[in-house]
Amino acid sequence: MRFELLDHGYVEFIEAWGRGKAGQEGFPDYEVGIIEAARQSTQGSFRGWEQDSKLLTHLYDNNHDTPFEFAGMIIEVQAPIFVFREWHRHRTQSYNEMSARYTPLPDLCYMPMSTIVQDRAISGWQSKNKQAGGMSENPPDEREISAWLRHQQTLYQAQEVHYQQGLRIGVPKEIARIGMPVGHYSRMRASGNLRNWLGFLTLRMDPKAQWEIQRYAHAVGHCIAETFPQTWKLFTKSRG
Amino acid sequence: MRFELLDHGYVEFIEAWGRGKAGQEGFPDYEVGIIEAARQSTQGSFRGWEQDSKLLTHLYDNNHDTPFEFAGMIIEVQAPIFVFREWHRHRTQSYNEMSARYTPLPDLCYMPMSTIVQDRAISGWQSKNKQAGGMSENPPDEREISAWLRHQQTLYQAQEVHYQQGLRIGVPKEIARIGMPVGHYSRMRASGNLRNWLGFLTLRMDPKAQWEIQRYAHAVGHCIAETFPQTWKLFTKSRG
Amino acid sequence: MRFELLDHGYVEFIEAWGRGKAGQEGFPDYEVGIIEAARQSTQGSFRGWEQDSKLLTHLYDNNHDTPFEFAGMIIEVQAPIFVFREWHRHRTQSYNEMSARYTPLPDLCYMPMSTIVQDRAISGWQSKNKQAGGMSENPPDEREISAWLRHQQTLYQAQEVHYQQGLRIGVPKEIARIGMPVGHYSRMRASGNLRNWLGFLTLRMDPKAQWEIQRYAHAVGHCIAETFPQTWKLFTKSRG
Amino acid sequence: MRFELLDHGYVEFIEAWGRGKAGQEGFPDYEVGIIEAARQSTQGSFRGWEQDSKLLTHLYDNNHDTPFEFAGMIIEVQAPIFVFREWHRHRTQSYNEMSARYTPLPDLCYMPMSTIVQDRAISGWQSKNKQAGGMSENPPDEREISAWLRHQQTLYQAQEVHYQQGLRIGVPKEIARIGMPVGHYSRMRASGNLRNWLGFLTLRMDPKAQWEIQRYAHAVGHCIAETFPQTWKLFTKSRG
Repeated sequence: MRFELLDHGYVEFIEAWGRGKAGQEGFPDYEVGIIEAARQSTQGSFRGWEQDSKLLTHLYDNNHDTPFEFAGMIIEVQAPIFVFREWHRHRTQSYNEMSARYTPLPDLCYMPMSTIVQDRAISGWQSKNKQAGGMSENPPDEREISAWLRHQQTLYQAQEVHYQQGLRIGVPKEIARIGMPVGHYSRMRASGNLRNWLGFLTLRMDPKAQWEIQRYAHAVGHCIAETFPQTWKLFTKSRG
Repeated sequence: MRFELLDHGYVEFIEAWGRGKAGQEGFPDYEVGIIEAARQSTQGSFRGWEQDSKLLTHLYDNNHDTPFEFAGMIIEVQAPIFVFREWHRHRTQSYNEMSARYTPLPDLCYMPMSTIVQDRAISGWQSKNKQAGGMSENPPDEREISAWLRHQQTLYQAQEVHYQQGLRIGVPKEIARIGMPVGHYSRMRASGNLRNWLGFLTLRMDPKAQWEIQRYAHAVGHCIAETFPQTWKLFTKSRG
Repeated sequence: MRFELLDHGYVEFIEAWGRGKAGQEGFPDYEVGIIEAARQSTQGSFRGWEQDSKLLTHLYDNNHDTPFEFAGMIIEVQAPIFVFREWHRHRTQSYNEMSARYTPLPDLCYMPMSTIVQDRAISGWQSKNKQAGGMSENPPDEREISAWLRHQQTLYQAQEVHYQQGLRIGVPKEIARIGMPVGHYSRMRASGNLRNWLGFLTLRMDPKAQWEIQRYAHAVGHCIAETFPQTWKLFTKSRG
Repeated sequence: MRFELLDHGYVEFIEAWGRGKAGQEGFPDYEVGIIEAARQSTQGSFRGWEQDSKLLTHLYDNNHDTPFEFAGMIIEVQAPIFVFREWHRHRTQSYNEMSARYTPLPDLCYMPMSTIVQDRAISGWQSKNKQAGGMSENPPDEREISAWLRHQQTLYQAQEVHYQQGLRIGVPKEIARIGMPVGHYSRMRASGNLRNWLGFLTLRMDPKAQWEIQRYAHAVGHCIAETFPQTWKLFTKSRG
């Protein structure tokens, strides 16, 4: 399971857990482990929770979150550095990222589509004017924005040539990268339990999150939906 | 895989992860995920780490701990409450424990073997006298200790009868348990990544840890040894 | 600031932080640090947040939680062991508790008031019958409950005598305590940042939490209200 | 207390806690809180620990780490983004960083001193050749390195002009920054308890850590030494 996104990014499912004791190798159900952990607490003493799906719904709706720590998922992500900067604020996940101290990073930089930047520029301009209570400025010019992006591409390339040159003449990798733009792609593995992943999605699928990390969150959401379908249904329902 | 310990306790392996992308369902190798995560950082740019086992050794010996967060294990544990009290100080694991608020706990209490308590009493007496620089007190009397344990058994039983009586007359479960001794058994699921488990073992396999939790730590160690044999070898070697 | 609760428990304020750079020693305002941390992100670029109180409200209402990690509080708590067992599930706080391995615990056990147990017994019986859709059982008998509590007191005392006897004959402290009831009092220091404390209160001031830990949560709430009055107002308002 | 480092960076002490219950406002001793927390566990039942300094030494030398969670420190840091990227791997600290989504970042980029880069280039070349068992390549040329750095400065400036141009024509801030180099300075507040800070220092004062973050770690060390002098002495002694 792999989702391509932005111009060079991806989210790839690596592994999941949550099969519990009753779990099977061949046809894994990664939500059995959640149920088994929850049944530890109550030992079947509640009427109406005989069915796994009812128990899961009860747990979710009443914020009994710990059982959801007994399943989890590991993914591989390729994303611009500025996306990773936001991602790494989530301190409950585990990360292992490509290190520019040890290895030259691949020559890939994020170049957003012109139309998308134009739309976001216009919409930013509108909400700013609304706040200010007037239409004092000119709207962003679409051609100017396109030209700006093209020039960014040129700067990306100049910086990449310079980086390669630094490596060639013996500048240590850890110094050679000082000019590397935050739009440069990097790669990592990320691991978290299901409770942590849902917390991540709550914040990063939110329309207020930066558009780019929203793309990644939706891709992570697809992985969750495939792997933990019942929990996903409860999650999407609770978000309305 | 299940280890019985103390008089009514056990540690049972439930599930592991760490198969990585190359991992197989049928013949899982739970250390592939560690290697794959570590290779993210370096992208194969180091000589001498072509072999997985050499890379793993390098990681371990140089305290590169994050790759060991890309594998993990879930177990089920039955232990006296006072053991769980020490266990739960490890705040990086996930726990789901039987709840005396929701379900009556089974009638099982920890009764240590008389000879073991006598040995520990004698050895405690010796080290205390050594500290004090004299042999001022009489050594613990073995028969007195045996008698003390037998009487504890009687008190355990009286308390259990009282607990059952409370439940019968409608005392809420959460109150009925106020007299329950910390030697009473409880049960939980515990989940942690490999790095966290090794941290737990370092503290709880230590001879200074209470003898009872040491038993549990050794059982957890057996699960780790079976599931992550290479890492286990590095761990035991580093502990000398 | 110290709040007595239950029969032998207390919550005592020890220390707070959050004075920030502009903070003063003599007349500390422990919410300055939150504001200063938040202004790091935005550098004053938003209209309408010139006033500290408006910024704080914005942060709170939009789940910008990290600035609330830049203030915190340390308290001392004396509570029954079963309360600590629930408390320690909050893995983001720091704890240092009296250790029955190293020191004999004081002779204090929780004895709930008879009327309170009766009320809870009745209300538990009612909700159980409502669920079952009938009135099949007899309601709990108040005198039976009083008698049950009195007998618990006797068992507490018998166990305490036995504990002291164990210590006297040389049973190691860590074993001598195996019969100690979970209603026995213990003592600890707990430290957390403000964000963590609010998370604790959200779960433990909830009417579904056990009545006893609710008492402690309300006492912690009083400490928060005194020390972080603006945040407390936002917290209580958001809980409706 | 403020330490300037690199060309535009700094570490500034903001606030500390750990005064405990006996602590004073005017002449704070931030290690009282550690002692008081530790005495919770033992209640004075050990001979030889009557003196605070002996108890502190015992705690430190025996890895009793939790009492060191009852003191802490908040600092403000200005550093290149690549330093923050390494810093934020420490998931036990709290961070609030200037956000390029909300505010234009100041025009400050890290330009290392030419001689320092030359030294590191030479030493990297030597160790590489030693590993390879020969002197196959030419050593890095000092003038080439100087020229490379000067050209990096030119690229920094071109990128800054482009960034400002983007903001002017209405490119949203969060997009305008895609070309911003990881050598660009940012600013944050960081908070951690003393145990966490010592863990940070252990990893980042290590000679294997990148030279730049080592500078920051040493500045943090100075703040710790001033604020927690006894603990600092134990820490430096244990590192040999």
